[in-house]
Amino acid sequence: MNETLLFTVLDMAGTFVFAISGAVAARQKNLDLFGIIAIAYMVACGGGIIRDVCIGAIPPAGLADWRYLTLALIAAALAMVAYPLLQRLDHPVQMFDALGLSFFAVFGAHKALLLGHNAQVAIVLGIVSAVGGGAMRDVLLNRTPLILRKEIYASAALLAAVVQVTGERLELAMEWVPWVGILLCFGLRYLAMRHGWNLPRFAPHRKH
Amino acid sequence: MNETLLFTVLDMAGTFVFAISGAVAARQKNLDLFGIIAIAYMVACGGGIIRDVCIGAIPPAGLADWRYLTLALIAAALAMVAYPLLQRLDHPVQMFDALGLSFFAVFGAHKALLLGHNAQVAIVLGIVSAVGGGAMRDVLLNRTPLILRKEIYASAALLAAVVQVTGERLELAMEWVPWVGILLCFGLRYLAMRHGWNLPRFAPHRKH
Amino acid sequence: MNETLLFTVLDMAGTFVFAISGAVAARQKNLDLFGIIAIAYMVACGGGIIRDVCIGAIPPAGLADWRYLTLALIAAALAMVAYPLLQRLDHPVQMFDALGLSFFAVFGAHKALLLGHNAQVAIVLGIVSAVGGGAMRDVLLNRTPLILRKEIYASAALLAAVVQVTGERLELAMEWVPWVGILLCFGLRYLAMRHGWNLPRFAPHRKH
Repeated sequence: MNETLLFTVLDMAGTFVFAISGAVAARQKNLDLFGIIAIAYMVACGGGIIRDVCIGAIPPAGLADWRYLTLALIAAALAMVAYPLLQRLDHPVQMFDALGLSFFAVFGAHKALLLGHNAQVAIVLGIVSAVGGGAMRDVLLNRTPLILRKEIYASAALLAAVVQVTGERLELAMEWVPWVGILLCFGLRYLAMRHGWNLPRFAPHRKH
Repeated sequence: MNETLLFTVLDMAGTFVFAISGAVAARQKNLDLFGIIAIAYMVACGGGIIRDVCIGAIPPAGLADWRYLTLALIAAALAMVAYPLLQRLDHPVQMFDALGLSFFAVFGAHKALLLGHNAQVAIVLGIVSAVGGGAMRDVLLNRTPLILRKEIYASAALLAAVVQVTGERLELAMEWVPWVGILLCFGLRYLAMRHGWNLPRFAPHRKH
Repeated sequence: MNETLLFTVLDMAGTFVFAISGAVAARQKNLDLFGIIAIAYMVACGGGIIRDVCIGAIPPAGLADWRYLTLALIAAALAMVAYPLLQRLDHPVQMFDALGLSFFAVFGAHKALLLGHNAQVAIVLGIVSAVGGGAMRDVLLNRTPLILRKEIYASAALLAAVVQVTGERLELAMEWVPWVGILLCFGLRYLAMRHGWNLPRFAPHRKH
C-alpha cells in the first residue's frame, strides 16, 4: 500500500466510524432526521475542519470533499434503519471509536506536517482532529464533554500523534510508523476502557 | 435591481432580523447591556464569520464591515427601548427569523460560489451561515440548540441553498433564482411553524 | 523597553495568568490531569487562536509557538502541586485575571492592526482575545459564560482595545499608550469587582 493511499484509508475509516458514533448519540437524544445527519457529520468532520482552518488548508477537506459528507449520510442511514444492530454492536462500536481516535490522531498530525508546520502544531492538531468532533457533539447536546471526564482518551490520541511526528522527523519508514502509533493509541484506549484506567485526579479543596 | 445590490440587501436584511432575535433572547435571559449587544452581534454575524473563515475570506465581513456591527447595535437598542413592541410583534419576529434564515442560506451559498468553491462547500456553508449564529447563541446560553429540536428549520435552509447553487450552476437568471430559493425556504418554514411539521424522528431504543 | 519586547511581555504574562485561572477552574470541576492541562491551555490560548484565524495569522501563535503551551503546562503543574497556595491567593488570582484581561485586550488589538486590519476588526478581536478563552472554558464546563453574567468584564476589555486602537491611529507614543489602556481596563474591572458594579440590566417582561 503506498503512503498516500494508506493515509486516505485511515482518514476515511476514521470518518465513517466517528459518523456512526455521532448518529447513535443523536438518535439516543431523540433528534430528528436532519439532527442525526448534522451530528454524524459534525463528529466525523468537526475536528478535521478546525485542524484545516488552523493550518490554512482552505477550504477544509471535510467541506470540499464529497466523500466525507457521503460517509456521514451512510452512517446516519445505518443508525436509522439498523439501530438495533448497532446497539447489539455496542461493544464493537466502542472499539470502532477507539480505532477512529487512533486513525485521526495519526492522520491529523501527518497532515499538519505535510503542510510544513512544526512538531507542536502537528501534535496539538492531531489531538484536536481526534477529539474535536466529539467535543462539538457534547457541547451541542449540552453535556460536559466526555473527553474531559472519561478514562484515558485524549491522552491516547496524544501518544499516537507524538509517535507519528517523531517518526516523520526521524524519517523512519512510513510503512510501519503510523501502525505503531495506531496500535499504541488503540491498545492504551482499549485497556483503559477494559480496566477503567484513569489519569490521576486531584481532590478539589473546599473553596474558602 | 442589479445583482450585487440584491445580494447586499439580502445580507443586510438577514443580519438585522437575526440581531433582533438575538437581542430579544438575551434580554429574556436577563443579560446586561453588553451581553445583549454581544448575543445580537453573534446571532447576526456568527454563522457568516465561520463561513468566511472556511472559504478564506479574511478578514470575515462580519468583523471588518462596520455595517454589520451597526445593525447589531441598532437591534440591541430596539430590544432595550422597544421591548414591549417587539413582544407584541412576537409572531412577526418569528416571520422575520424565517426571512433571515432564507436570506442567509441563499447569500451564504452565493458567496462561497463567488470565491470559487464547489457546490458542496456552498450548500453546507449556506446552511452554516443561516443556522450557525443561532446555534452559537444557544450554546452560550447553555441550552440544546433549537435547530436540533424544532420543526423543520435547517432543512429549509438546505432547500434554499440547493436552489441557489443549482441556479448558479445552470447559469439561470439571477433576477429570480434567489427569490425562488427564498420563497421555498420561507414557505416551508412558515408552514412547518403553522402546522407543527417535523422531520421524522426515530423512537430511541432502550440502551441495553 | 522596546516596543516588540513590551508587547511580547504583555502577551506572555496574560497567557500565564489565564492559564492559572483555567487550571484552577478545571481542578474545581474535578477533571483529570489531561483535562486540567487542556482547560488551562484553552483559557490561555483559545481567544488568541480565534483572533489569529480571523486575521489570517496562520498557523495561530498559540499553536505554533512553544512558549504558550509551556506556560500552560507550568500553570497546570502549579494548580496541581500548589493548589492550597493558589486558593489562599484567591483574591490575587482575581487580580491576575483582571491583568490578563487588560494585557490581552491591548495585545489583541495591536496584533490585528499590525497585520493591516481596520479599527473595528482590531477592537472586536481585542475583546475576543481577552474573553474568548474564558468563554470556551465555560462552554466546555457546561455553564453560562461568566462574561455574560458578571460585573463589568468584557466592557473593560472594550475600553482597553479602544484606547490602544485610538493611540495607534493617532500615532501616539507606544511607550505609554498600552499602559493607559491597561490601567483603565484593570482599574475599571477592579472597581467593578470591589463595588459590584454592573452594566444596566432590563427587567424581562413576561412573555405573553
